[in-house]
Amino acid sequence: MKQTKMLIQTLREVPRDADVVSQQLMMRAGMIQKLAAGIYDYLPLALRSIRKFEQIVREELAKDGCQELLMPTVQPAELWQESTRWSFYGKELLRLKDRKDAEFCLGPTHEEVITDIVRKNVRSYKQLPMNLFQVQTKFRDEIRPRFGLMRGREFIMKDGYSFHVDDADADKGYWEMFNAYKRIFSRLGVKFRPVEADSGAIGGSFTHEFHVLAGSGEDGILSCDSCEYTSNVEKTEAPRIPAVDHGPAQGLSRSHFRTPGITAMEEQAKAFKDDAHDGLPLHQTSKVYWLTAEFPGEGDATRQVAVACVLRGDHELNPVKVKNYLGAADLQPMADGEDFCGAAPGFLGPLPQEGTRHWALHQAPKDALVYLVDRSLEGAVNLTCGANVTECHHFGFDPKRDLPGAVFLDLRMAQEGDLCPRCGKGHFQAFRGIEVGQVFKLGTKYSRKMNCVYVDEHGKENPMVMGCYGIGITRTVAAAIEQNYDADGIVWPWPIAPYQVHLLDLDPGNGEVRGVADGLERDLEAAGFEVLHDDREGLSPGAKFKDADLLGFPLRVMVGSKGLKDGVVELKDRRTKELRKVQPAALVAEVMEARDRILRELEIQGGR
Amino acid sequence: MKQTKMLIQTLREVPRDADVVSQQLMMRAGMIQKLAAGIYDYLPLALRSIRKFEQIVREELAKDGCQELLMPTVQPAELWQESTRWSFYGKELLRLKDRKDAEFCLGPTHEEVITDIVRKNVRSYKQLPMNLFQVQTKFRDEIRPRFGLMRGREFIMKDGYSFHVDDADADKGYWEMFNAYKRIFSRLGVKFRPVEADSGAIGGSFTHEFHVLAGSGEDGILSCDSCEYTSNVEKTEAPRIPAVDHGPAQGLSRSHFRTPGITAMEEQAKAFKDDAHDGLPLHQTSKVYWLTAEFPGEGDATRQVAVACVLRGDHELNPVKVKNYLGAADLQPMADGEDFCGAAPGFLGPLPQEGTRHWALHQAPKDALVYLVDRSLEGAVNLTCGANVTECHHFGFDPKRDLPGAVFLDLRMAQEGDLCPRCGKGHFQAFRGIEVGQVFKLGTKYSRKMNCVYVDEHGKENPMVMGCYGIGITRTVAAAIEQNYDADGIVWPWPIAPYQVHLLDLDPGNGEVRGVADGLERDLEAAGFEVLHDDREGLSPGAKFKDADLLGFPLRVMVGSKGLKDGVVELKDRRTKELRKVQPAALVAEVMEARDRILRELEIQGGR
Repeated sequence: MKQTKMLIQTLREVPRDADVVSQQLMMRAGMIQKLAAGIYDYLPLALRSIRKFEQIVREELAKDGCQELLMPTVQPAELWQESTRWSFYGKELLRLKDRKDAEFCLGPTHEEVITDIVRKNVRSYKQLPMNLFQVQTKFRDEIRPRFGLMRGREFIMKDGYSFHVDDADADKGYWEMFNAYKRIFSRLGVKFRPVEADSGAIGGSFTHEFHVLAGSGEDGILSCDSCEYTSNVEKTEAPRIPAVDHGPAQGLSRSHFRTPGITAMEEQAKAFKDDAHDGLPLHQTSKVYWLTAEFPGEGDATRQVAVACVLRGDHELNPVKVKNYLGAADLQPMADGEDFCGAAPGFLGPLPQEGTRHWALHQAPKDALVYLVDRSLEGAVNLTCGANVTECHHFGFDPKRDLPGAVFLDLRMAQEGDLCPRCGKGHFQAFRGIEVGQVFKLGTKYSRKMNCVYVDEHGKENPMVMGCYGIGITRTVAAAIEQNYDADGIVWPWPIAPYQVHLLDLDPGNGEVRGVADGLERDLEAAGFEVLHDDREGLSPGAKFKDADLLGFPLRVMVGSKGLKDGVVELKDRRTKELRKVQPAALVAEVMEARDRILRELEIQGGR
Repeated sequence: MKQTKMLIQTLREVPRDADVVSQQLMMRAGMIQKLAAGIYDYLPLALRSIRKFEQIVREELAKDGCQELLMPTVQPAELWQESTRWSFYGKELLRLKDRKDAEFCLGPTHEEVITDIVRKNVRSYKQLPMNLFQVQTKFRDEIRPRFGLMRGREFIMKDGYSFHVDDADADKGYWEMFNAYKRIFSRLGVKFRPVEADSGAIGGSFTHEFHVLAGSGEDGILSCDSCEYTSNVEKTEAPRIPAVDHGPAQGLSRSHFRTPGITAMEEQAKAFKDDAHDGLPLHQTSKVYWLTAEFPGEGDATRQVAVACVLRGDHELNPVKVKNYLGAADLQPMADGEDFCGAAPGFLGPLPQEGTRHWALHQAPKDALVYLVDRSLEGAVNLTCGANVTECHHFGFDPKRDLPGAVFLDLRMAQEGDLCPRCGKGHFQAFRGIEVGQVFKLGTKYSRKMNCVYVDEHGKENPMVMGCYGIGITRTVAAAIEQNYDADGIVWPWPIAPYQVHLLDLDPGNGEVRGVADGLERDLEAAGFEVLHDDREGLSPGAKFKDADLLGFPLRVMVGSKGLKDGVVELKDRRTKELRKVQPAALVAEVMEARDRILRELEIQGGR
């Protein structure tokens, strides 16, 4: 393919509103163009990569007998009301009305539609299991679309759904897809990890995320250096730590010490002074997070509950653990926490001001206040805590005694170096990852609500047990770039490079050079390679090199008059920068050899 | 592929809300399922046909160097405001607001987006011409979605756009696509016609529609039996007919004859009686169509104009000709025509009631009333016309004299048997067609409004000249069925059949039969055929035959214990119903031969 015939407009400068490397490089390489916040045009080069990845996905899923179909983008409200997600899903679900005022949404996912299809078309246990998927454009109205294709609003996704007679078969289907995903990301040629994850809003009982490893990744991953345990930090179980012994329990000493202007935990701990102490260790302090949890109420109404989470001063809260424990639809920092407690930030505590039950003023009914305490404080005494009086802290706080009814559980964020709670031997290593795929065991959440049942061999109706399986197609292409680039541009993994060989004619005005370049293009294409032939006139070799580095196809062939005088062209590996002089007649064989070497290396670096 | 592993649920009964054959058959064959009005799930069988057709389209477009890209479904209002279509497009453009109240629409077409892409990426005449296309899901909020996939709201379309330095090059691009479309529909294996068409709301100066011929087609096509002239009846030029001589002109005789209860033209003509006449020929009567034309006014406002179209009593109005002549955004029958004229239907006329200029009462400004008269009445005198007095008609109507300022032009619908105005020799034959593709020369409509310019060799900026080219992918698949079915089900054209061979195991409980069927499945697949193997147990051969007829794959192989006793299986051609007994070992060769014969026949029946 001649480059003069392609829509490829490269940019020297980094576009102003591109905030991550993949976005910058894809925009600079003329692969994508922003149409609106989180909405992109996929120009021809980008679409080539996208289609190649889609093809890998299709081929691997076909091996497990998955069937492809295509469901609509615009979905009727009725189905989402049936599953109750119409009210639950939040504003990422873009709702709209048609000309007759009927309510619809743009599909952010298709559990409802696929369940509707299967309940209407599958009746007997003999037809199960069934695994259906589509590759489709989805829309999620992200509040802050960013990171180019990685957190866009309109994006391409492969979403698959499986239907089973029972839990055991659903587990089997789950692990089949888990293995298919390992094959898919291995073939993609990137470093990745399957990661135990939180099931989030979509619900379901068990889930793995597939992450492309990249320093810019949004997600923290903790991986045991001894066993297989790898999980999203949102989900990672923190090791159980016994309460630190702070001596015999004393009574609660209210507003025991003044801490004017001191809000940082470390300084508070140091500021504590009495007969027995000149400063306290940080783990003798406590902190509280005041949150508001939301639950569905009657009809469209929601019920709000105040949640106080108490942790050691040196620990961080993992809000996902709180949300999951409570089964809340939403969990946010309390918007009016200071009014609620009656003190300035830095002095909020778990106990109401003496005499005034401050939060009672806010008409919070008794059962709408929940105390959760991290299990590392189970049995701890003589702690400090915020006094809910500005510039004051209590001393002698004993969560078990002072917060009757409080639940002790794992609330904290695990961190690098923590002992692995799974094997008890290794310690956590931290990675950053970009989530590109997820496998879920959904169970009967949708099939029960939407009456998706099958008749078993005894003639009895049972809800189907479901799994769902997503891959962000466009996000994966961007993530592959986040992992594979250098200062000069993209360094494409071979399997999804838009073209495999970039053939640069360094002197297109010269008939001999052009003749050799055209011949090599033909020969390489005849040998099955995808070649982009830079035949543009009026550009210096330097400008062509820069563009070729930016576009980042795995192999580059340079044909110039100088080299041809010595009877050679040059072959360069984009990743290693290795450069070889090759006789034109030997080029195709050399390119084949280079390809084989690159593919061998990809195999080695593939995910575990 | 084993049928037990596929999502195929056939129905015996015709679904209640399916109003055309293709929709009925696709629903009965388990290919599609309605999710909402005009919104369908494409189940695995349908998607196979859709993908095959997409592939044909891609291959043929690649031959002309067209580049594929992918534009968003959700498009920002700004671009549509730039092209002014935001206010013009009407309610088929589904407008919506995101969570930040920004305005968007679901793309019914992509002229704005592609023009935006090209203006940002193409600068020089050296980069032109450029031809870009996508295969994408579109949404048009049809007021009355119907006919299954043929007039749905969400559908898959191939839309392409070309950009040129001048008119001559745009014409060249137009005919390149015209020829590509001929190749595409020929490869599809259906009877079709390229048809001169009206350019409609999309604008543009020249256009052809591609129609799949089918009795159920929505569009009338007139084709000269002597020359190449084939056009959509909406657009067909009517032959010029001189005014019939009705004797020397008399004066207008108002309310000359009473026609109580007579509204049909034929009866009116008969009812006319005076000294000289006992009844009139129908072509001596005239009729008027009162219409309201809408034009864009200031800002979002529209301007309405009353239009009176006068035709011979034996002619029908072609409203498209009126709309095009006026350049109106919209044209509708006048909603309050009777109030406006002051008479009951059947008695409306072109002249106001004597003394009262009835329509003046409606504050219609003078320039907001337009008279158009069909050219076959140019010079006609002594006509009848409605009197705008209930039960009365005038006599002696002379359009030229009585309607000063009236414009005479071709207003009428051409019809079968009319003399061809192009060659003047042949006559029109009528067909019904389903429009599945269209090629447009857009000119500079969008490039001027959106400033999509290139720099020519003299450094001067010029607007690019554009063409646009659509194919309704899903509609074409449905149209192919409208043309190819019989009482038993679909009769797939080979190139887009979901599977090519339906292998029926008539006795799956029998080990020998199953073994032969499995072997033939393997052999056929190894020979490159797509085989659906009906391995379902517990069904009678009759039930399997019925399903196979309904699904309609081109070739059917039947394996049963009875045949195997004689050492044969049966091979049946779905279209011809021809049945042959074949030895299993010879089957693959026979299937190959049958395929070659079918493909040869397709070539012969292809469009001209």
